Amino acid sequence: MEADLKSTFLNVYSVLKSDLLHDPSFEFTDESRLWVERMLDYNVRGGKLNRGLSVVDSFKLLKEGKDLTEQEVFLSCALGWCIEWLQAYFLVLDDIMDNSVTRRGQPCWFRVPQVGMVAINDGILLRNHIHRILKKHFRGMPYYVDLVDLFNEVELQTACGQMIDLITTFEGEKDLSKYSLSIHRRIVQYKTAYYSFYLPVACALLMAGENLENHIDVKNVLVDMGIYFQVQDDYLDCFADPETLGKIGTDIEDFKCSWLVVKALERCSEEQTKILYENYGKADPSNVAKVKDLYKELDLEGVFMEYESKSYEKLMGVIEGHKSTAIQAVLKSFLAKIYKRQK
Amino acid sequence: MEADLKSTFLNVYSVLKSDLLHDPSFEFTDESRLWVERMLDYNVRGGKLNRGLSVVDSFKLLKEGKDLTEQEVFLSCALGWCIEWLQAYFLVLDDIMDNSVTRRGQPCWFRVPQVGMVAINDGILLRNHIHRILKKHFRGMPYYVDLVDLFNEVELQTACGQMIDLITTFEGEKDLSKYSLSIHRRIVQYKTAYYSFYLPVACALLMAGENLENHIDVKNVLVDMGIYFQVQDDYLDCFADPETLGKIGTDIEDFKCSWLVVKALERCSEEQTKILYENYGKADPSNVAKVKDLYKELDLEGVFMEYESKSYEKLMGVIEGHKSTAIQAVLKSFLAKIYKRQK
Repeated sequence: MEADLKSTFLNVYSVLKSDLLHDPSFEFTDESRLWVERMLDYNVRGGKLNRGLSVVDSFKLLKEGKDLTEQEVFLSCALGWCIEWLQAYFLVLDDIMDNSVTRRGQPCWFRVPQVGMVAINDGILLRNHIHRILKKHFRGMPYYVDLVDLFNEVELQTACGQMIDLITTFEGEKDLSKYSLSIHRRIVQYKTAYYSFYLPVACALLMAGENLENHIDVKNVLVDMGIYFQVQDDYLDCFADPETLGKIGTDIEDFKCSWLVVKALERCSEEQTKILYENYGKADPSNVAKVKDLYKELDLEGVFMEYESKSYEKLMGVIEGHKSTAIQAVLKSFLAKIYKRQK
Repeated sequence: MEADLKSTFLNVYSVLKSDLLHDPSFEFTDESRLWVERMLDYNVRGGKLNRGLSVVDSFKLLKEGKDLTEQEVFLSCALGWCIEWLQAYFLVLDDIMDNSVTRRGQPCWFRVPQVGMVAINDGILLRNHIHRILKKHFRGMPYYVDLVDLFNEVELQTACGQMIDLITTFEGEKDLSKYSLSIHRRIVQYKTAYYSFYLPVACALLMAGENLENHIDVKNVLVDMGIYFQVQDDYLDCFADPETLGKIGTDIEDFKCSWLVVKALERCSEEQTKILYENYGKADPSNVAKVKDLYKELDLEGVFMEYESKSYEKLMGVIEGHKSTAIQAVLKSFLAKIYKRQK
């Protein structure tokens, strides 16, 4: 069943890609059509597709067991792909801004020979493709305007989150005193939670004919889940087995505004604060080791365990208080996917 | 009167900026609010504002002398500013991709100390601001969806034009045989004509209650005017007095797909083609001089003069055939602004 959904989902990708490569709004040259095709296959198709697939899953749960029509399957997959396109757009540009090396086990797009800074324009193209997909397949739907507004608002929020992340983590001005739980929450909420957690469910709700203004509570619980997800990410970056995680964390070296450093700052004695300031954000393994030792001394593993179970209880409490069992099912399925994850 | 319009227009900028800096969709920190304000003043406010002001001018002409209400003045200025925002977004990112040094007499935004690659995210923010402005002020208008679709389509077309420009002009593969009038027309039409010529008039038409699908002829003539405008630009880059032009052209050094090189390729003997291949796209002044000598030998000045007068006649012919005198007035005002311009 799951494999079946994934193959349907991938078929829809081929349809959408073909539409875009023959978009009547532009006269492609052969060269530029090949360029876009290669760029899409490299950046959009290769992800884990969790966000995209969750639109289809959520929509099914909202339909409470009724079979989806062929059109509903196609449209929910198309919206899922819009989120994957949005993610690809952010990642292509973020990798340039962060000067990253690899992404999903291959070189970042801008590092591919002959791509370079053209990747910026490719990012813009990815972003514009979303609206071509929406226009082609949703223009006649009663929820078209809301859908366009939704994607625009979430894109803005993500860019704003990225902005405070960039400004706060600024190179050349490494200053731990800027880091706090409040700034961490803001970065995470805007940069990750809206597009990864709220957007898929909001798409499914619109397809189900719901008015998003009546679902602010759903938005709030998904944003909280997104924050919890990112705190896990921060924790795993330092404490997970790199083998299991599939990558080696570098948040300490990169001077990231991680939940761990924020919690450490809250709990440090004057002496320990000094150690943190002296060692955080340095590439040398001996500096990194000192930070990790300090994290252990401060029992951040225990602090995280407690945060994890408290968050779970709180989220479950809110979810079970929701009047709609279909929406409860959607939210619980998201929570189940991330609770106590090891990677 | 003109000075009056400009000061009204600048007042609307202050209103829009203030809205954006207090947008409820995001929780600004003081630092990030200051960042955005500085970024907007640096990149959006400082242009010549031709494109933006032309929305207001065009809308007035469409109203055939009737006075504009206060709301109509505000809204047409706001749409004008959306085009200025769009232009700022493209320029901020293009300057990074082209590795440019100055823009409008000041360093390119990404070259300002402490900005660097954060400029990419700033570009994204500029783009997102457009939709915030549209949503705040036009959400209730019957033409809201068409307006959003219009901005999205024109943005896509501009990005596609930039793509073929980047792919064609590609460094490391300097190959003049790729250049032709057909590729030049495509670059210019998509990268410049849609957003600079069609978009302002399309905005005014929507505000006047028109359906854009009934005005494909208006689109076509404006796109042709945009192509003519860019050919002038290419001509002036080489032949204008740098004093009058306000900058020193570098299209030859930069291996640009200029109308001049395309025309030269059309007219060259075998011997002359060899000279062009050997000297085009090189920074050395002696190479540049050889290309300029060849252009003179081929009488490209004369070829341009003929192109200019033929284009004018053709455009005027089409314009005067239009059934609406108000639309004729709009189109003539655009043409008058650019015909035989010296800068």
